[in-house]
Amino acid sequence: MAKASSLSYDPLAIGIDIGGTGTKFGIVDRNGNVLFSSEISTRTHGAAIDPFIDELYDKLSVLIDKAGGIGRMRGIGVGAPNGNYYTGMVEYAPNLPWKGIVPLAKLVQSRFQLPTILTNDANAAAIGEMMYGAAKGMKDFIMITLGTGVGSGIVANGKLIYGHDGFAGELGHTIIIPNGRLHEGTGKRGSLESYASATGVTLTALEMLENNPDESLLRGVPKEKLDSRKVYDAAIQGDKLAKEIFDFTGYILGMALANFVMFSSPEAIILFGGLTKAGDFIIKPTRENMESNLIQVFQNKVKILVSHLKESDAAILGASALVWDMKG
Amino acid sequence: MAKASSLSYDPLAIGIDIGGTGTKFGIVDRNGNVLFSSEISTRTHGAAIDPFIDELYDKLSVLIDKAGGIGRMRGIGVGAPNGNYYTGMVEYAPNLPWKGIVPLAKLVQSRFQLPTILTNDANAAAIGEMMYGAAKGMKDFIMITLGTGVGSGIVANGKLIYGHDGFAGELGHTIIIPNGRLHEGTGKRGSLESYASATGVTLTALEMLENNPDESLLRGVPKEKLDSRKVYDAAIQGDKLAKEIFDFTGYILGMALANFVMFSSPEAIILFGGLTKAGDFIIKPTRENMESNLIQVFQNKVKILVSHLKESDAAILGASALVWDMKG
Repeated sequence: MAKASSLSYDPLAIGIDIGGTGTKFGIVDRNGNVLFSSEISTRTHGAAIDPFIDELYDKLSVLIDKAGGIGRMRGIGVGAPNGNYYTGMVEYAPNLPWKGIVPLAKLVQSRFQLPTILTNDANAAAIGEMMYGAAKGMKDFIMITLGTGVGSGIVANGKLIYGHDGFAGELGHTIIIPNGRLHEGTGKRGSLESYASATGVTLTALEMLENNPDESLLRGVPKEKLDSRKVYDAAIQGDKLAKEIFDFTGYILGMALANFVMFSSPEAIILFGGLTKAGDFIIKPTRENMESNLIQVFQNKVKILVSHLKESDAAILGASALVWDMKG
Repeated sequence: MAKASSLSYDPLAIGIDIGGTGTKFGIVDRNGNVLFSSEISTRTHGAAIDPFIDELYDKLSVLIDKAGGIGRMRGIGVGAPNGNYYTGMVEYAPNLPWKGIVPLAKLVQSRFQLPTILTNDANAAAIGEMMYGAAKGMKDFIMITLGTGVGSGIVANGKLIYGHDGFAGELGHTIIIPNGRLHEGTGKRGSLESYASATGVTLTALEMLENNPDESLLRGVPKEKLDSRKVYDAAIQGDKLAKEIFDFTGYILGMALANFVMFSSPEAIILFGGLTKAGDFIIKPTRENMESNLIQVFQNKVKILVSHLKESDAAILGASALVWDMKG
């Protein structure tokens, strides 16, 4: 079926996922098959947006030709940090090279002459999960991306929650520990992202190594090389301190998830991103702490699922899925 | 217009609001005019539900006759603590006299022979605000009731969020202070309700009086008579400790509201219930602490509004409004 669809003349969608370092893009059919894909650096042209759009156009044109030409393309979906669905603008994205407010959807649309729709990267991922992934068929779920930062996309009543201004779903910035750890990017204290991101896990590791006299494999790692991957490698070798680092991360994340459940009562929470590679080291304490903070009516009901979409495809899929929802 | 409507033969709706002590009910026209209303005790018959339904039927029948007879009644909307919209059941409501799971919608429907729909009391209030109150015309808002407990109703994309199981919107039970104050009813620690309810304010007052050597008008109040009203009376006379009690309550509530904003990015948060009578003593610190915990993109955008519906009417209005949304 997938092959047949890719060879037919059904319309296709372009998905673009703009990240802090790389920009991935691909051409996707209606069944969620990524037919062609490629990647460029987001940072080659520094703060200049026009040459970035030009390079994107050149590289994508090659794929468009392979896929049967521009006439088959229904439109373009773009996921980007701080992307606003209502305005098509990327607004003050700390991790992107372009400063201030960038009219990204408009720039892409006029370069490609194709209808273009923008949303933030985590919302795009949530749509991808709903259409092709772990949340298929669900009307109420929350997607949490545990990467360098913590992003989220929330679906209720079968629809993504964009909120009044298009910025809903910034669960990484909710305060979990009042007056807790400082988040350098926002200046706020105790947010979920300051603990449950890859960066947060590294900070927890540094703190625990300093405050804890126990022996640990992590003491052999130079401080500047310490990251969540190294903590995982140590945990899998039975390192007690490494496990405690994940236990603490799960304590924070579980408490946060309990609060999210009591907000929108989702069928499942889908976790996605680098930290999920730590598997049960992080999932088990997260689930335990979520359950222990839930009032009775919510207990033992909410699934915690790890996304099974290929990481390189998921973001492109989600962005492309926006196209099928476009009006007109 | 309202008068004309009430005298015409347009269909009417019955709204019933079941509370821990009293049950209010009324007959409402499509414009939100409460034409007739009355009240019975929720507790007269103890744990027996059937005689309660009988008494409700007798008292309501008088109003139905006054309003033109049963033929004009389109249906019945019921708001009750722990009421489930999907199942029509009241499930394990700690503040109601009936134990376990009560098929309330079914019981009302068969006694009155009218289509009946149930939701929880805070959701009913949110619908009332959306149709007739401070949230009129809004598609994204959160309603918080600050009474004996803390309830909530969340509207996103113009629809109430019921969640996967009908229990969404239990924001009073979200954890704001990890390992904080014990909530006697749930056994959980640090929930919003344990601080920002009328009960929570009384507990804060008792704690502050014990741990603070300052003079205060509240020291003249016998401990068992201390309540949020007495704290307000003292604050309005310039009592420093009384103001600190509200400042602390606003610190907790503001932090919680910031988290809710970063979840669903509402146009406004509507506050309702007894504690709002403290006015700026509670609203000002709440607003300040909400803003200081929000990341930039949300700052100075979200209105905090106090419901202006008459308290006795609002709950009946909200419950009756469910009827106009019924299918079939």
